[in-house]
Parts: sequence; structure tokens; C-alpha cells
Amino acid sequence: MGGVYTEASMSLDGYIAGPGETGFDRLFQWYGNGDVATATAKPEMTFRTSQASAGHLRHTLDDTGALVVGRRLFDLVGGWDGRHPMDKPVVVVTHHVPDGWPRPGAPFTFVTEGVEAAVGRARELAGGRWVAVNGGSIARQCLAAGLLDEIRVNLVPVLLGDGVPFFDHVRDAPVELSDPTVVAGDRVTHLYYRVRRP
Amino acid sequence: MGGVYTEASMSLDGYIAGPGETGFDRLFQWYGNGDVATATAKPEMTFRTSQASAGHLRHTLDDTGALVVGRRLFDLVGGWDGRHPMDKPVVVVTHHVPDGWPRPGAPFTFVTEGVEAAVGRARELAGGRWVAVNGGSIARQCLAAGLLDEIRVNLVPVLLGDGVPFFDHVRDAPVELSDPTVVAGDRVTHLYYRVRRP
Repeated sequence: MGGVYTEASMSLDGYIAGPGETGFDRLFQWYGNGDVATATAKPEMTFRTSQASAGHLRHTLDDTGALVVGRRLFDLVGGWDGRHPMDKPVVVVTHHVPDGWPRPGAPFTFVTEGVEAAVGRARELAGGRWVAVNGGSIARQCLAAGLLDEIRVNLVPVLLGDGVPFFDHVRDAPVELSDPTVVAGDRVTHLYYRVRRP
Repeated sequence: MGGVYTEASMSLDGYIAGPGETGFDRLFQWYGNGDVATATAKPEMTFRTSQASAGHLRHTLDDTGALVVGRRLFDLVGGWDGRHPMDKPVVVVTHHVPDGWPRPGAPFTFVTEGVEAAVGRARELAGGRWVAVNGGSIARQCLAAGLLDEIRVNLVPVLLGDGVPFFDHVRDAPVELSDPTVVAGDRVTHLYYRVRRP
């Protein structure tokens, strides 16, 4: 039975975006610096990574059953034109259902009752597999609500100096994690941590 | 030929101390949660770690030839009573040589001309081995001056929420690092990164 995870590419100094939305070339370099192809639902988006990172991506694609995303991310990517690259059902946490949604054939659900309700809906859709929650604000709310089971950090060997922290003043700290499963890629170290409940 | 490194135990959210000087029980748990003993120059201070962390400690003890520390750290630990636990010569960066120092038989040198001069003096004392620089303020000055060759992070699986960051607004970012050497311990992942010069 799957749980709930969040995942991000993070610099060694803790940022998922550099100052002024910079740094993505470095944070996401590992998605394109190898020769092992991993296809997505988008023909124009095929990852080309090291063998190790391809294993990580395959694991993620296989074990994820549904996604929970915030309205900000949903708007930023234009609702992925109704199909997420991972080709999974998406639950959007929002105050108001956006105009023109839901759309026929697009597996997008809109939940206006908050993160817990959204995760509950995603669990139903996930068919026993894992639920991915993004971005940071949604993940933090899940962590605070005791809903987060795993944190997957793609740790990138760069110092960005400033920007958007992955972990921004976590509440109810300290939060104990397990020792990580480590997958060593090229310009990335994949670290999977389980969240230990008090 | 050795270079210059800094090392710290850091939470996954980037802190080397939690809020109000808490969190050390978790950050330093790995120093005492195993059965492999590593002695120091202090009879009362023997580390008992996992086999993997003992290898890390042995590597550190063997390849370090001298240390550079800031005056704040020196004062905080009372000058280690004239003998650092690693039993290596220590160069203290200070504005004024403290009263009662230097002391006969204590391999402590006081440098008032700044971090670069201190590192130069430590290199002479290190006999071809590595120079360790601590704490964070000294390490940051070394990084900014292009003097830092390696960053050794003992990454601890905990979120502390707030506190003292290891990397506090690094200047001249982004700073590219190598992929790390990874040593998986118990309640710690040792990561050695080389600093890439532009």
C-alpha cells in the first residue's frame, strides 16, 4: 500500500530555486545529462539521464498512482493542457474551481476543502500506489498534518546562496526521518527519507 | 598534497544548530550510537560509532595536518586546554592574542592578519596533509577567498525547522561542487564534495 511523498531537486544549501527564479539549469541538469531515455506522456519531454537516475525516474513513474498539486503550480504550467507528464490523475487544491475546468477526458479533480481532503481523494484515485504532493506549500501542510510518509530529495552539488528553500521553517520540528536510501546519479544524489511519526 | 576542507553535521533542512542552541542531541547522535571506538587525544572523549562512521573518522584523523579555527570557537571550548581532541596544531584567527597565550607545550598559533594568513600558516604546519577550517564564518571566508577545496557534510536525517545554517547566504554563488563521495552511516550520511573553481 502506497503512502504520500513529496519530491524536489534541492541545492546543498537547501534551495529548490535560486535568487530571482535562477538556478534551474543547475538544479535540473541531471534530467538531461545522460543517454538513458525515460519517456513521459509529453512527446516533447523525454528525460535523458544516467542509468542510476533513470532507475530513480522509473521507480517514481511506476509507484506513483496520483498527484496532489497546489493551485499556484497548476496555473504556472497551464494545467499541463489537461495531461500531466506522469500521465496520472491530478487533484488540485484550490479555493475556487478555475473557469473551463474540469474538462472532458482530462483526469483532473478540484478539491476546495483543503489539503487533507485532497490527499484523501488522491488516495482513492491512486489504486494502492503512492500519492505525490507538490509544491512546497502543499508538502509542508501535509507534513504538519501528519500525512507525509516520505521525502525524496534530489540533492544537487551546487550552492545557490539564496532563493526558495525546500524546507521553510518546518513546524512541529524536530521531525525525525529514517536513514535514507541513496542512489548516486550524475550531478545529483537521490535520497529517499521516510518520515518517522512521534 | 592536502587541501583545505570544512566539515559539519547538518540537518536535512540545512542547520548545524537548532533554534536556541538545541538539536545537538540529534545532530551528534551518530558520534555515540555504535560500538566501534575511535579514540581522541582526550581520554574522556572516545567516539563509539557505526563501522562506516568510524572509517570516516579515521580518514579525517589521518588526513588532517592542522586546523584553523575562529576566536569564537576557541573561546567557547576554553582553548581545549591547550590540546585539540584531534591532537593537531591549531591556528586561531583573532584580532588580539588572548591573555595567557601562547602556552608552552600547546601547539596553538595566533594569527591577527586574517583568514588567508591563517590558512597559509596552517598549510606550513600541516606537513602536506589537509587543513580543516571551522566554524561556519571562517569556512565562508575561505570559500569566498577561493581557499576551500572540500566540503564534508555529515547529513543527519532530521528537520530542525530553524537555527544556524551551515551555508548562510554564500557569496559569489552559484558555487559548483563535484558529485559527492557517499559513506552511509547510522543516523548520518557522510558526503564529501570537492569545490570546483570557476
